[in-house]
Amino acid sequence: MELWFTERHTPNVKFSIKVDHQLYSGNSEFQRIDVFDSKEFGRFLTLDGYMMLTEKDEFIYHEMITHVPMSVHPAPKNILVIGAGDGGVVRELTRYPSVESIDLVEIDELVVEVCKKYLPTTACRFDDPRVNVFYEDGVKFIRRCNDQYDVIIVDSTDPFGPGEGLFTKEFYGSCFKALRDDGIMVNQHESPFYDEDAAAMQRSHKRIVESFPISKVYQAHIPTYPSGHWLFGFASKKYHPTNDYNGTKWSMLGIKTRYYNPRLHTGAFALPCYVEELLRDVE
Amino acid sequence: MELWFTERHTPNVKFSIKVDHQLYSGNSEFQRIDVFDSKEFGRFLTLDGYMMLTEKDEFIYHEMITHVPMSVHPAPKNILVIGAGDGGVVRELTRYPSVESIDLVEIDELVVEVCKKYLPTTACRFDDPRVNVFYEDGVKFIRRCNDQYDVIIVDSTDPFGPGEGLFTKEFYGSCFKALRDDGIMVNQHESPFYDEDAAAMQRSHKRIVESFPISKVYQAHIPTYPSGHWLFGFASKKYHPTNDYNGTKWSMLGIKTRYYNPRLHTGAFALPCYVEELLRDVE
Repeated sequence: MELWFTERHTPNVKFSIKVDHQLYSGNSEFQRIDVFDSKEFGRFLTLDGYMMLTEKDEFIYHEMITHVPMSVHPAPKNILVIGAGDGGVVRELTRYPSVESIDLVEIDELVVEVCKKYLPTTACRFDDPRVNVFYEDGVKFIRRCNDQYDVIIVDSTDPFGPGEGLFTKEFYGSCFKALRDDGIMVNQHESPFYDEDAAAMQRSHKRIVESFPISKVYQAHIPTYPSGHWLFGFASKKYHPTNDYNGTKWSMLGIKTRYYNPRLHTGAFALPCYVEELLRDVE
Repeated sequence: MELWFTERHTPNVKFSIKVDHQLYSGNSEFQRIDVFDSKEFGRFLTLDGYMMLTEKDEFIYHEMITHVPMSVHPAPKNILVIGAGDGGVVRELTRYPSVESIDLVEIDELVVEVCKKYLPTTACRFDDPRVNVFYEDGVKFIRRCNDQYDVIIVDSTDPFGPGEGLFTKEFYGSCFKALRDDGIMVNQHESPFYDEDAAAMQRSHKRIVESFPISKVYQAHIPTYPSGHWLFGFASKKYHPTNDYNGTKWSMLGIKTRYYNPRLHTGAFALPCYVEELLRDVE
């Protein structure tokens, strides 16, 4: 018997992982949730059939979405995380002694429960006393926030389904308002490679550029996401992601990473020409 | 009807492209050669069932394997290319007015013939008067070369089958001997992500480190290669790939690229921690 999980990266491209067995399948009010075990990637989580994370490469995504803003901000104390029910971003954030509070807003409580049970290597720091979990729509939650966060990390699904509202102008405006005067927002920014993904990325980027004075994009190699070439958006009120970056200071924190490092921090903002052009077209 | 090309990136991972129709299938003395047409990637070439290039993303590989060494060397005149029967490296090399000769050594004449016929966007500069094509084993060709090339580009297949000899210590030693005192050799260096690929990459890297005083590795996003995270080896007698790099000088050449640019040149040498560790283990 062979069991394969297959995701269509476009109507014409399939990526398939040989599955050992399925650990969980269920439906929440918001989406279908599945967890599989595999020889190549360890356990992996899908939402509505889309790959969210695998044990083998989740460190890349979670380190890059977390340590880039956390290393640029000189003293991040109060952090808001939207989405991220798998706990990976929280795990990385709790490594910073300077952090005083982590508010996690996840729309789907079942995602957190399933990850706590089946993905203990990512959902491992929810019991940190600094973490407060709110099961509610991030778009609504942030409307009532004012001038109170140093860093906001938007770890959303794709810009359709439950994650759709997290790619709107209204939402980015709320993030701006929720941040302090030197605050930073980072979001997962889709991929530049396939036409449909690139168009979604451009739409989202345009709205961020309109909402923040500093808006840059950085990249990482994430093999289980479509094309493996993944982007993150860095939006900021004051700090520039590379000019205001002090890698030595970050290194002195002694945080152990497997992907992120100070040289790579700067390198990740050096984008290919075709990606720069896609961004320039909407800036 | 649906027709799909599928490549196993590992025994447990499949990557599949919807094919419109097959343009060519044949067997040479060395390998099976196929060309397909597809909606997503345009035409693509496979050798023994392994993806070599697609019209959609070949620019990434060819720009990165060519412009990195060509921009570091201050005056590259005589170039040797091993493999590369598809013509992509030659196309990029002919953009440099300083280049006086390009010796291309391809073991398989049928690859060149098929690419000229079916992949005219890569196999488009074989008629440049500076290009000399030798249909012969690169390992044998280079044994008789001494102190005559400024840059050697090893655009090989994977380290098994016809490309196997291009990953040996003897071959790298011959490359060293064939280069002038300030020569640079670049090779495709496999991927760090899947265990078997990473092990091959380490073996090859070890041999290059033993053969050249300066040996660095850089990376690119190549969506149609396994994991999408691809490495290149930069081996050099004199020049350091980033310390001795003058991006402004390269920009003044006015070469139009879609992936490579001077900022990305430096950024591409900033590797993730786990890749640095793989390399350090054999250095």
